Amino acid sequence: MVKRLSYLGPAGTYSEAAAVLYDSGAELVPFPTIPAVCRAVSDGIVDECIVPIENSIEGSVVYTLDFLISETDLSIFHEVVLPIQHCLMVRPGSGTEDFKVVFSHPQSLAQCRRYLEEQFPSAEPVASLSNSAAVTDMLESKVTAAAIAPQRAAELYGAEVIRSGIQDVTNNVTRFVLLGCKDHSPTGNDKTSFCFTFTKDAPGSLYNALGVFASRNINLAKIESRPTKESLGQYNFLVDCEGHRENELVREALEALSAQVSGLKVFGSYPCWNPGT
Amino acid sequence: MVKRLSYLGPAGTYSEAAAVLYDSGAELVPFPTIPAVCRAVSDGIVDECIVPIENSIEGSVVYTLDFLISETDLSIFHEVVLPIQHCLMVRPGSGTEDFKVVFSHPQSLAQCRRYLEEQFPSAEPVASLSNSAAVTDMLESKVTAAAIAPQRAAELYGAEVIRSGIQDVTNNVTRFVLLGCKDHSPTGNDKTSFCFTFTKDAPGSLYNALGVFASRNINLAKIESRPTKESLGQYNFLVDCEGHRENELVREALEALSAQVSGLKVFGSYPCWNPGT
Repeated sequence: MVKRLSYLGPAGTYSEAAAVLYDSGAELVPFPTIPAVCRAVSDGIVDECIVPIENSIEGSVVYTLDFLISETDLSIFHEVVLPIQHCLMVRPGSGTEDFKVVFSHPQSLAQCRRYLEEQFPSAEPVASLSNSAAVTDMLESKVTAAAIAPQRAAELYGAEVIRSGIQDVTNNVTRFVLLGCKDHSPTGNDKTSFCFTFTKDAPGSLYNALGVFASRNINLAKIESRPTKESLGQYNFLVDCEGHRENELVREALEALSAQVSGLKVFGSYPCWNPGT
Repeated sequence: MVKRLSYLGPAGTYSEAAAVLYDSGAELVPFPTIPAVCRAVSDGIVDECIVPIENSIEGSVVYTLDFLISETDLSIFHEVVLPIQHCLMVRPGSGTEDFKVVFSHPQSLAQCRRYLEEQFPSAEPVASLSNSAAVTDMLESKVTAAAIAPQRAAELYGAEVIRSGIQDVTNNVTRFVLLGCKDHSPTGNDKTSFCFTFTKDAPGSLYNALGVFASRNINLAKIESRPTKESLGQYNFLVDCEGHRENELVREALEALSAQVSGLKVFGSYPCWNPGT
């Protein structure tokens, strides 16, 4: 049976490109929000889902983090790192570089701002609801227009790419995670993601918590504090450590951690992304 | 002489509301991007600037963090915490709740999604480049329209607010920082913000770094890792600690820290925001 995989739609977004990169044979099912993407798994509509979690320029996708922290029991069982290549596209055959407006999601417009100012100073940036909506906005525009969107959106909606990789910062990648009912078995090159909080904010709390990893020589790949829903000053800590939760040292560290913190939640262990595989 | 203060324009954004909350007597000068807002201070066009740094729902404003890390020598000398109240507004006197489209920045549309689905299921969300552009888009719209924007934008552009506080999560606040040529003198209730990195990612590095604060009983108010521009796996750590960099213990801790890390940069010490003052 073909695997069914939900993603943040519509078709033609970077999320769809990441889903294809993860499993080009899966049946892809778009949903309009991150919670809806995840609930499709809980509700049995799809087998797995893919959601963006971190972009090298924009930072964490906090909707995904907050959903993992407090609204789902799904586990992370895989990660995918997708290079973000913004493409400039026009109506096919128009061949024009003389467009008056350029449509995209405000985030993508911001990521290509310097390029647009230098190359197309007279083109007016116009907001669209998504990168993929930008392509249909462009195709339906009454004035000559361009759109900034992924290559995949050009293929799906029939636009012609006239430039690619136009983002101002060249090293722009997004990390996606795959969520399902259980995480991945150990592979020897794994990561474990978890979060915790403290009931009382006291000096040294975080230091002591990290000590359970340092004393076992476990490297932390990432740490981030997210304000809890209650207030700006109270934080959940999100950590990625190297190793699998079934490795003895990681297991011991997580046990020691749970004695010191409140609300420890392990999101899962999964193989580190290796673009060669 | 009246103080000149640059902010992320256009007029009517939450940044302007925060600037007014900080100093209602200042002359406010809008700039279109966070780097431009800050450079106005370095270039002597204005005395100070205000930029958003963290939202309780969306997370850190990474453009501000990255600019502080690598592109400016300005110091943080104050903070302001602004409650975010999204307002639904229409053309004055139209009194209609029968609008067909609702304009706003995609982030604000996302923050009011549940409200719109429940209260105005037939209204189509349309993207604008900013919350304040949403108001002019609405006023110029050929179909009956509404906009989601701050109260301040309604006042500036002459729209009529028909609902306020329509965001799905009620506790939505944004923290802004004031930047200038020097930070604030000690007040007895201060915070110090700084960042650092490690040349080599080794187990225990962060743990040891945080130890210099724990051993002096200095509380950390916030910690965050941001990927360096080089790659997703290499991080800058951004920390807010309690106390002023001129307090003896904080000074000692920062000295001890600088011996362990590379690229320690202190953004400044400043009074903790107290909405009562």
